[in-house]
Amino acid sequence: MSTQSVKQAGLTIAYIGGGSRGWAWGFMKDLAMDPHMGGVVRLYDIDREAALKNQRIGTMISAHPEALADWRYEAVDTLEAALKGADIVVISILPGNFDHMASDVHLPEEYGIYQSVGDTTGPGGLLRALRTVPMYADIARAIQATAPKAWVINYTNPMAAGIGTMYEVFPGIRVFGCCHDVFGAQKLLAAMLEEVEGIRDIPRQDIKTQVNGVNHFTWLTSASYKGQDLFPAYEAFAKKYQDTGYLKGQDSNWMNSFFHSSHKVKFDLFLRYGAIAAAGDRHLAEFMPPWYLKDPKTAQSWGFTLTPVSWRKTDLQERIRKREALLDGSEPLALTASGEEGHLLIKALLGLGDLASNVNLPNRGQSRQLPLGAVVETNALFRDQEISPVMAEDLPAPVVNMVARHADNQLSIVKAALEYDWQLAFNVLQNDPQAAHLPPSKAAEMFERMVNNTLDVLPAKWRRGSHQQ
Amino acid sequence: MSTQSVKQAGLTIAYIGGGSRGWAWGFMKDLAMDPHMGGVVRLYDIDREAALKNQRIGTMISAHPEALADWRYEAVDTLEAALKGADIVVISILPGNFDHMASDVHLPEEYGIYQSVGDTTGPGGLLRALRTVPMYADIARAIQATAPKAWVINYTNPMAAGIGTMYEVFPGIRVFGCCHDVFGAQKLLAAMLEEVEGIRDIPRQDIKTQVNGVNHFTWLTSASYKGQDLFPAYEAFAKKYQDTGYLKGQDSNWMNSFFHSSHKVKFDLFLRYGAIAAAGDRHLAEFMPPWYLKDPKTAQSWGFTLTPVSWRKTDLQERIRKREALLDGSEPLALTASGEEGHLLIKALLGLGDLASNVNLPNRGQSRQLPLGAVVETNALFRDQEISPVMAEDLPAPVVNMVARHADNQLSIVKAALEYDWQLAFNVLQNDPQAAHLPPSKAAEMFERMVNNTLDVLPAKWRRGSHQQ
Amino acid sequence: MSTQSVKQAGLTIAYIGGGSRGWAWGFMKDLAMDPHMGGVVRLYDIDREAALKNQRIGTMISAHPEALADWRYEAVDTLEAALKGADIVVISILPGNFDHMASDVHLPEEYGIYQSVGDTTGPGGLLRALRTVPMYADIARAIQATAPKAWVINYTNPMAAGIGTMYEVFPGIRVFGCCHDVFGAQKLLAAMLEEVEGIRDIPRQDIKTQVNGVNHFTWLTSASYKGQDLFPAYEAFAKKYQDTGYLKGQDSNWMNSFFHSSHKVKFDLFLRYGAIAAAGDRHLAEFMPPWYLKDPKTAQSWGFTLTPVSWRKTDLQERIRKREALLDGSEPLALTASGEEGHLLIKALLGLGDLASNVNLPNRGQSRQLPLGAVVETNALFRDQEISPVMAEDLPAPVVNMVARHADNQLSIVKAALEYDWQLAFNVLQNDPQAAHLPPSKAAEMFERMVNNTLDVLPAKWRRGSHQQ
Amino acid sequence: MSTQSVKQAGLTIAYIGGGSRGWAWGFMKDLAMDPHMGGVVRLYDIDREAALKNQRIGTMISAHPEALADWRYEAVDTLEAALKGADIVVISILPGNFDHMASDVHLPEEYGIYQSVGDTTGPGGLLRALRTVPMYADIARAIQATAPKAWVINYTNPMAAGIGTMYEVFPGIRVFGCCHDVFGAQKLLAAMLEEVEGIRDIPRQDIKTQVNGVNHFTWLTSASYKGQDLFPAYEAFAKKYQDTGYLKGQDSNWMNSFFHSSHKVKFDLFLRYGAIAAAGDRHLAEFMPPWYLKDPKTAQSWGFTLTPVSWRKTDLQERIRKREALLDGSEPLALTASGEEGHLLIKALLGLGDLASNVNLPNRGQSRQLPLGAVVETNALFRDQEISPVMAEDLPAPVVNMVARHADNQLSIVKAALEYDWQLAFNVLQNDPQAAHLPPSKAAEMFERMVNNTLDVLPAKWRRGSHQQ
Repeated sequence: MSTQSVKQAGLTIAYIGGGSRGWAWGFMKDLAMDPHMGGVVRLYDIDREAALKNQRIGTMISAHPEALADWRYEAVDTLEAALKGADIVVISILPGNFDHMASDVHLPEEYGIYQSVGDTTGPGGLLRALRTVPMYADIARAIQATAPKAWVINYTNPMAAGIGTMYEVFPGIRVFGCCHDVFGAQKLLAAMLEEVEGIRDIPRQDIKTQVNGVNHFTWLTSASYKGQDLFPAYEAFAKKYQDTGYLKGQDSNWMNSFFHSSHKVKFDLFLRYGAIAAAGDRHLAEFMPPWYLKDPKTAQSWGFTLTPVSWRKTDLQERIRKREALLDGSEPLALTASGEEGHLLIKALLGLGDLASNVNLPNRGQSRQLPLGAVVETNALFRDQEISPVMAEDLPAPVVNMVARHADNQLSIVKAALEYDWQLAFNVLQNDPQAAHLPPSKAAEMFERMVNNTLDVLPAKWRRGSHQQ
Repeated sequence: MSTQSVKQAGLTIAYIGGGSRGWAWGFMKDLAMDPHMGGVVRLYDIDREAALKNQRIGTMISAHPEALADWRYEAVDTLEAALKGADIVVISILPGNFDHMASDVHLPEEYGIYQSVGDTTGPGGLLRALRTVPMYADIARAIQATAPKAWVINYTNPMAAGIGTMYEVFPGIRVFGCCHDVFGAQKLLAAMLEEVEGIRDIPRQDIKTQVNGVNHFTWLTSASYKGQDLFPAYEAFAKKYQDTGYLKGQDSNWMNSFFHSSHKVKFDLFLRYGAIAAAGDRHLAEFMPPWYLKDPKTAQSWGFTLTPVSWRKTDLQERIRKREALLDGSEPLALTASGEEGHLLIKALLGLGDLASNVNLPNRGQSRQLPLGAVVETNALFRDQEISPVMAEDLPAPVVNMVARHADNQLSIVKAALEYDWQLAFNVLQNDPQAAHLPPSKAAEMFERMVNNTLDVLPAKWRRGSHQQ
Repeated sequence: MSTQSVKQAGLTIAYIGGGSRGWAWGFMKDLAMDPHMGGVVRLYDIDREAALKNQRIGTMISAHPEALADWRYEAVDTLEAALKGADIVVISILPGNFDHMASDVHLPEEYGIYQSVGDTTGPGGLLRALRTVPMYADIARAIQATAPKAWVINYTNPMAAGIGTMYEVFPGIRVFGCCHDVFGAQKLLAAMLEEVEGIRDIPRQDIKTQVNGVNHFTWLTSASYKGQDLFPAYEAFAKKYQDTGYLKGQDSNWMNSFFHSSHKVKFDLFLRYGAIAAAGDRHLAEFMPPWYLKDPKTAQSWGFTLTPVSWRKTDLQERIRKREALLDGSEPLALTASGEEGHLLIKALLGLGDLASNVNLPNRGQSRQLPLGAVVETNALFRDQEISPVMAEDLPAPVVNMVARHADNQLSIVKAALEYDWQLAFNVLQNDPQAAHLPPSKAAEMFERMVNNTLDVLPAKWRRGSHQQ
Repeated sequence: MSTQSVKQAGLTIAYIGGGSRGWAWGFMKDLAMDPHMGGVVRLYDIDREAALKNQRIGTMISAHPEALADWRYEAVDTLEAALKGADIVVISILPGNFDHMASDVHLPEEYGIYQSVGDTTGPGGLLRALRTVPMYADIARAIQATAPKAWVINYTNPMAAGIGTMYEVFPGIRVFGCCHDVFGAQKLLAAMLEEVEGIRDIPRQDIKTQVNGVNHFTWLTSASYKGQDLFPAYEAFAKKYQDTGYLKGQDSNWMNSFFHSSHKVKFDLFLRYGAIAAAGDRHLAEFMPPWYLKDPKTAQSWGFTLTPVSWRKTDLQERIRKREALLDGSEPLALTASGEEGHLLIKALLGLGDLASNVNLPNRGQSRQLPLGAVVETNALFRDQEISPVMAEDLPAPVVNMVARHADNQLSIVKAALEYDWQLAFNVLQNDPQAAHLPPSKAAEMFERMVNNTLDVLPAKWRRGSHQQ
């Protein structure tokens, strides 16, 4: 068989951010429970110790009595060592640390801008992108040099800036971005069906959804279950719960478990626009003008809370504690599915079964209303050596510009970050719905402070003196 | 559950052309062998006797001991009676009869134009379209009136004119067109893999193909099998057999069994253009200039033969004989799969499993190089209440105009037929690669004779006196 | 000569809004001073008396000793009487009266929204559009019935909603919209050239500009004078005057004479985005987030003032006084050019000389970044029976979405107004940069009050009870 | 004034092909009679003697008593010396010589392909393009290096391949292509108006035409004269003369004076398709299937003759004789306008007056039905530092593919020529309507012979051995 052929039993996966406490474990478990693939997973992380510990955890998972597959884990010292000849690359990193994120999220509060997540859009998303883009440019160049044919799965936020950068730097790259937000919306629809029609335990995969938008601001334009259009029932459901919120049917994915919301924002958007925004309310609120995020009290009235970065720090300590407990055996290691689809998409790409799922890719026409080249989230067909975006249904007219605004901003962010263009980056900030109403001088001051706060993870050219402005 | 919901056990299928001797039986058997659906199939045919006989055959099939589903067959007297409230409509008719087809196919021979099929393109395809379009306009109007939400599967040639007409007349229609040509190409690739790599019995479904084009002139832009790109092997294969032809791996679908070819045209096109034309050589030759169809001897040198309509008449008699034998029990009725996918696509649309397949639909962007609105053949994702075309890969540059020429012609044919526009229809004839080289006066004479020959199945306005020209 | 041929000496012009005090007189004078055309101008106005008085003024202008053309003026009683067989239609009306406009402009001030004009965008522009659209739908239907081949020039604001409505109602209409904003920008550039290079009295027509955008938010993407690129000089000029403003070179067009600004907004936008926004600062400020219009003091700091509707009422009284003075001869009637180009465009369309100018038309591709079908402002070539938009240069990336936001809103406004769709109209309000930051409940209350305030000039369906919401 | 500003009195024009006997003299005279510009014209030609002689003729023209402008002529030795710092570049060369052209035009006659011109399309146009593209690639690189901001006017055929190559090699180039074919159609319309309506001496510029297509296959989609739509009269005119031809109203441009036709092809195309093909019948016939060029007798029956290359050789001797006569004073030098517009377009680009004309430019959307990037011929607005294509009217549906076929071929030719891709070049030949009907083996033989015949003016890689095929 040709060298191009499948190596289901001898795959090489490079995991960038392989010291991850959480995502990596879920992925390892998903691999372990699937008998159709095997090989080696190379773990690379700037935190070398974390990668080594995950090598041990991965080895434990592979050795678990319920494991059905044969995977070997190897912590490696360099990006190149991880990538060299890889069939699959997984990227799941934290650009900067939580101190940088604290600046991203909380400094804007001094200017009246409250962010419930701060990693994708708004001032926080912008700053995070400015430091992510150079990192992704480096990774893309390394992939071009060492594994140009590899399929690359990105999980890192901001999704669009990361993927957009990679295609800009190496147009032949085969990267796509995965996000479980649509899964969450499918689970909510399943919960609705249970409440309205008494059908229990509907797998979220059986709720078929058509989607269009950009990551974390993706809209379901239709949804059905076994031939039934779910929108009429959802309208009644949204009206019923628009005031009280709906607290059942939460996404039980561990990564979201601390982030429950009552879907009041989602219901409100549906009743205004007639389509279902997929992400959780914490994300959605950030893509809109400050209707839901005027201040913490407003957020609370909409049934969600702001996630302080201090919580993330505590949570990280808890996950580090958990890691140690797993490693010393004081906590048992259970093989449970992560709910993610990464391993299934890999299988599809190897020719082991077709799969349709939502995915982030540059727009080459699948989303007719959004700019060509922008990274959009639509459904795609994953098959043997193929990711084919499907033509998305049109977004409702009043939603188009709201989404395009972010798509345009994301295109500009990549350009600004690659060219160290202060003015263009600032234009993006001022075009962001969360910040647009700020007086320009205030916005300029805030932006400069945010940049200065995170200069240690930005290219030197962002030092203000380097600019001629 | 809502009235929109699935009625897997109580489906109503309207079969237009329900007296069919062949296609209908295959479809009935496929239904019988699938335990997940049931209901009633209404058979409508302008040959009332044939529909009644198929009602009996359908009933026999349902009663077959190996049948797993519960389907009732009913011959009905009118189109409206068939359609009223149908969930699914299948159209498989013969526009005109074989005497009309004899004129389509053989009259042009007097002008040096030889057609190997004559039902899709070329002078024969044009005349057939001129009589098909009004029939499809009537059916579309009837569907709008009686079953506007039904899914409609078309099998009739010419595919693009039929489907294009329906969308023109009733833009909300949910019709799509199915053709097994791509299946045939997949089988050839499977045969190649067996020869080259010794892998036996590869199901054609496991050969994944990306396609782009128009029906019977659809091109595979890539093909793979379990992670292996099949094009390098196919190039070697095409070179090996370009002179002798390749006679194994024929499509065993009964409908094609008399139509074997040696794939020399397919190999030749691949070596010229770098993509695999999907259809059989008899179809392909008709979409090109008269390279392969200069005269019967040229066709023979390329390893295929012209199908005389007299053969079709004989074959029809044989099928009628077979029908009587089935009815009187002298020939046993065997439940074998047709190889078609119609019943699977219906299941997918009912929410019973996703399926990706090639399909004919108006271009809303899935084929970026072909005109918007033209009926193109690309892959699509079939799911619950959804047919989403996937973005096709680009065709090789020199192929674009060759395909667009037919797509443009097909758009003009629908317009000419709906508006009885003699000049426009004649422009199409002169723009057809088979007829373009004819002196204009000869072409005009031929066209007028072809119209006059088939006036009994054309709207009265085609009578030459009705035109002002 | 054919009946289609030019009737330069026997033209029929229908002037809708023919009682206008100002615009109409300028147009009459322009006609009088041009020897190449003549005929009849029919004046139609809902204020019958005003039309009659303008008939007298028009007759006086025609009789002026310096008049070079032969035009007859006729006040008519109905729209149909004005339009019947007209070659040219001019529309210049006030949708509603100044009391309605007072509500449009000043009611939002209670919600912190300050509007410097209030006739194009923002809450005021929206309400004005809701009453304009039905009027324009009526006019378009009348034109289709009585003068379908007429060239129609629109001067009324909101420009895009008026023109968009007409194409929606009668797609064959030949309407285009004229605005002198770009002329103003050309005059500023001429003033700059005088200051920088000492070149005096440059006619604004000699400053060549390429433009792209929507009316009142049109951007100059390049400008030159006799081979010289004017952008480098403009950049220095903008930097020099960004703090103090520039008070020379004001547009001396009478219609703008009360509306001077210091161009600080225009300079600021240029320094941010690298292109020259054409309109006056009062208009520009309204298309942006409330950077320049946070409150009256902020506006003042940017060198412009809000125009109170009370001023418009006073000004109208002054123009009425002037009309009477003209009529009784107490004020002499001087033949001076208006500075507008309407009569020149008419000449070009009659084949009396080519002219390129900026114009508002539906986008059929001339503006590649803006939605197809939206009414955009680009240059166009006016020639014999032809208006051909020229391909516009691309807008700077960060400007695209800002302009598209208004283009999308304008498309939605037409739809909302034609279908009486309260929710869609409200979506537009919330998507407007001036109002986006309002808490949704406040925005809803404001919108309802604005509708209720102007119900007498809105279709009955806008009465809230008529809606099911 | 800035260094960018106009230098009307100090312009530098580089004339590539400056030894031209004919075109160059016309251009020199046009310059001499226009008082608004002056400067130096550098003449560069691979025939150094011819350039020197034209230097003398140019000097004589400048010294003519009726000359109004001050131009100096300088023969230069290298391309770079001509281009260095030029404001304007004119390209008018003969790619290869008449022996090469004899092969282009006459060799295909052995295969039954008759070409009436052979310089733009068909086998002759293809071969000529294969040698033109490398020359134009060199010129484009030289312009990029020495005069990147110059406006470049191309007159050489094949137009699309030359211009397409330049944009491919140096995307920032400002080249456009001029052709007088549309002027010829305007003159025919003027002659028609004289015949039908008795209006004499209508300047062809007063006939306004909208155009769309590719050079020599450009279509007038509308035409008017002082408000009169000329199509109805033209239809009657075409019907009247479709059998006899029309011999008056010939283009009196000297370059065409030997090439009279009777417009029967033009009339025939109009009556088939409803639009006016602009070029002369000799060109038009070559863009169509062999309807008009089956053999010399068929051409004759359509009222035109094939131009043998022997005639061109004789004509060249005549023009050389004329040159000597001009130089030695035995023939007087008369200052007459050439009828071309090159000097007017230059003036417009310098800011000395707007002009709209037909021009060849890459399609960036001005022709919505033709491929983006292909060199198309539409109207454009020439102004100060600006060439803005105007949006063309759509071509009639059956014409679209006929034109797109050539546009696609031209795109492929540039690619094939730059990459020495034999198969792609041969695909173009087989996709050409004149050659498509040839049996593939015959076509291959012909193409190989044509290449071999002209190897001395082709890059070495076209030597068959260099190819792997």
